[in-house]
Order: sequence, then C-alpha cells, then structure tokens
Amino acid sequence: MSKIYVVGMGPGLIEHMTPKAKQALADCDIIVGYKVYIDLLKDEYPDKEMRKSGMRSEIDRCKEVLALALDGKKVGLVSSGDSGVYGMAGLMYEIAGDQPVEVVIVPGVTAANSAAAVLGAPLMHDYATISLSDLLTPLDAIYNRIDKAADSDFVICLYNPKSKGRPKYIDEARDIILKYRSPQTPVGIVRNAGRTNQSYDITTLQDMLSCEINMFATVIIGNSKTYVKHGKMITPRGYENKGTM
Amino acid sequence: MSKIYVVGMGPGLIEHMTPKAKQALADCDIIVGYKVYIDLLKDEYPDKEMRKSGMRSEIDRCKEVLALALDGKKVGLVSSGDSGVYGMAGLMYEIAGDQPVEVVIVPGVTAANSAAAVLGAPLMHDYATISLSDLLTPLDAIYNRIDKAADSDFVICLYNPKSKGRPKYIDEARDIILKYRSPQTPVGIVRNAGRTNQSYDITTLQDMLSCEINMFATVIIGNSKTYVKHGKMITPRGYENKGTM
Repeated sequence: MSKIYVVGMGPGLIEHMTPKAKQALADCDIIVGYKVYIDLLKDEYPDKEMRKSGMRSEIDRCKEVLALALDGKKVGLVSSGDSGVYGMAGLMYEIAGDQPVEVVIVPGVTAANSAAAVLGAPLMHDYATISLSDLLTPLDAIYNRIDKAADSDFVICLYNPKSKGRPKYIDEARDIILKYRSPQTPVGIVRNAGRTNQSYDITTLQDMLSCEINMFATVIIGNSKTYVKHGKMITPRGYENKGTM
Repeated sequence: MSKIYVVGMGPGLIEHMTPKAKQALADCDIIVGYKVYIDLLKDEYPDKEMRKSGMRSEIDRCKEVLALALDGKKVGLVSSGDSGVYGMAGLMYEIAGDQPVEVVIVPGVTAANSAAAVLGAPLMHDYATISLSDLLTPLDAIYNRIDKAADSDFVICLYNPKSKGRPKYIDEARDIILKYRSPQTPVGIVRNAGRTNQSYDITTLQDMLSCEINMFATVIIGNSKTYVKHGKMITPRGYENKGTM
C-alpha cells in the first residue's frame, strides 16, 4: 500500500529532529512542506525531490501529498514541532479518507515543550494547551476553556496567541485568567522557540501585555504555585511538598 | 560555572532522541539516570562515566548530580520523554537552589505526543494533560481538573493512570468524564510508547476499563468531535469545518 509519513521536525532547527524522523524522510521518494522547512532540509537530503508550498494552503498540500502517494510514491509531509499538535496529522487523515494509503505519524518535540525548556520548568504539573485561533473554533468555546482551565489551576499554554486578524484575544484571555489568579503569577513568552532568532520574556499576568507577543510566540501562564528564581520559571511538582526536598 | 544538563530522551528508545540531546550528553563528563535509561545509553557512549540510580530516589539523584557539578563536572541527568513534563527538570532546579550551577533543560518528545502518534491524531485540538498520581497533589484537585476539562471539551491525556497503590482512580476519572461525554467517546490507551513492547487499544469511554491500563500507559480521551476511522483515532482541527475539506 502507498505510504505517507507525516513528520514533526521539532522546533525550528535540525538539531531537534529525531533519528526516527530523519530515517522516515530518508525512506521517502519525495518531501512536501512549507518552504521554510524544505529549505532547512535541503542540506540534509541534497538529492531528494522536494516540493515547497505556501503557508495558507494546508488542504491543497495534503491533497497533493495524497495524489503523489496514490501515484506510487512514498511521501514525507513535514511540519515544525509535532505534527499531531495543531498540525498536519489530523488533516492528512481527513483528506486521505477511504483511499488505499497508509498514513504514519512520526512525533516531534512540540512548541509547548521547547518553550518550556527555554523558560526553565513551567510544565512540571498538569497543564492545558489552548489555541487562540478561532478560524475553526467558536471563540466562546475557546474562552470557556481558558476560564475552566484557570479555575482548576492548570498551567496554561497558549498557541497562536496573536495575529493581525485577532490582536486582542490575548488581552481577553489574560483578563479571564486574572479572575482566578494573582496579578503576580509568572508568565513566560517564547518567540521563535528553537530557531536562531529565539527570544523570550519572563513576566507576570499583570505586565505580560507590554511584552512582544506575535504569531511565532508560545505563552505559558503559571499555576498558583509557579515561581521565578534566578531567571527561571519553575512550577513545583507537588502541592504538598511531601518528600520533595 | 558548573553545568547540569537535564535531558529528555524521548519515548523509550534512542531513535527518538534529538541531536541536541545527544550532543549535550556527549559534552558531559558523567551521565546519571534511572538504570533502564543508562543501559540504553551504554552503546551510544561506551567510554562515558555513568551512574545508575533506582526509580524511587529522584531527590537523591538530583542531590548526587548537584554534588558532582559542584565538584567541577559537567553532568547529564537523563529521563525518558520530556524532562520538563512531570519529569526531573523542576526538581533539579529546586535542589540546585542558590548553588553556583547552571541548569540547562534539553527538551524531548513527551509521552502524550508519542502516544498520540501511535493512535493517529487525537491531539489536534486543545488538550489537557493530567497526572492521576496523588503522591504530591490532593486527589480533590486532580478530580476537579478532570471535571473542568471534561466540561469544557478538552481532549484529556492522563499520565500515571494506575498503579498498585491507586488501582481505582482511573475508574473515578472515567465516571467524571461520562457526566459530560457520550459513552461512545473514543479512548486510546498506549502502553510502553516507543519501546519494543509497545501495545495499544482504541476503545470507548464505556469499555475502556476492560483494557489493560498500567503504570506504563498513557490514556487519551477524545473530545466531542473525536472519531475512529480505519483503526485510527482522529480529532478534527475545527468545530465548524470552515474550509477544512
């Protein structure tokens, strides 16, 4: 049967790509992806056929991959981070539908985990991952999740926190969380995690909106126990400190 | 300043370990970790000094790592998955305290992402990660999070779902989720994700308790839109299907 590998490259650079991901792409006849990732892969696979596609055409990209696979090619569809988290994995299954192709997902390091490593250790306890993009989800459902996650003291990791079309959702998200948490709650903002232009801020719920937040940022809001020490954001594993120290 | 690398090896095998993680360990004078991981690393770094420690002695392990670092050694502390998710990263910062050491976290592929890849694409939308271990967290707080996450239609990923000491928490978790979701909601259970003895079930909220769930399992419960097709568990990215197909 024809085979499609949907491969998460991890955050930004080749240095986060797993051997399993590399092997999957080495096995492929052709690699398809957004042009930034294809450019990164050119040095790794100089002789491999590759196709670049634009950022907005995810459905077309999956359809192209399917057509190539049905034509008998082993195809690798690449994305940054983990393709199974707000990525191409689900869409590829949806587009493949009942066609005779095998879709294999190869996991990668997702943005939440790479951003957390930059900040210190903010995700050591239960956390909720929420995308602020309402392109495919009602905004009410998104805000309701933020409310419930804030109310039950999850660490909250926001994907797609801001874009030109929705510059103020992050303000609203912050205001919802402020209903339940102290203005001094630590907040970490990582831009371009794992890339050469990576930068970050560790701030507070009160001050976070004065930091740069863009579409390449991941925002992590601490729970009630999260603290900052020596410039690192740390969520302790326990609530009761039974035997942790 | 002395340096400690806290390195996530990804799920189980060397094939998921990133080049950055490998490079960090290559730079170290000594590698410390639970014996299973040290055994896996022996082939990769045959000449490296290594120290094994038992599973229950995480605090002692961090103290040992700190002592080695203060003695002038570059130390690598390894764990499976991502060390920043219920792992050693936060504990290492807590133990290091005000000592003159630099602690660097190297991210890895976490259990949620590797389990998701085995199952298909269940984490394509907002998800909440919850540990059922109440060793360091009040059980009420855990159940409250499950309730709130179920109520607001998060995909729910359960870590540490069961152990000898707490065989029934998973039953209670399921019953809470059943207050909000159909008995037919898809559930995926992955045991030993990424290891040679990996196995999984795709089942439903109604039937999940008849499947094997142990301390090496990750349990992913779908949201209201998750479906199973051709043996894969898929959460669509959108609620409204605006332009997804």
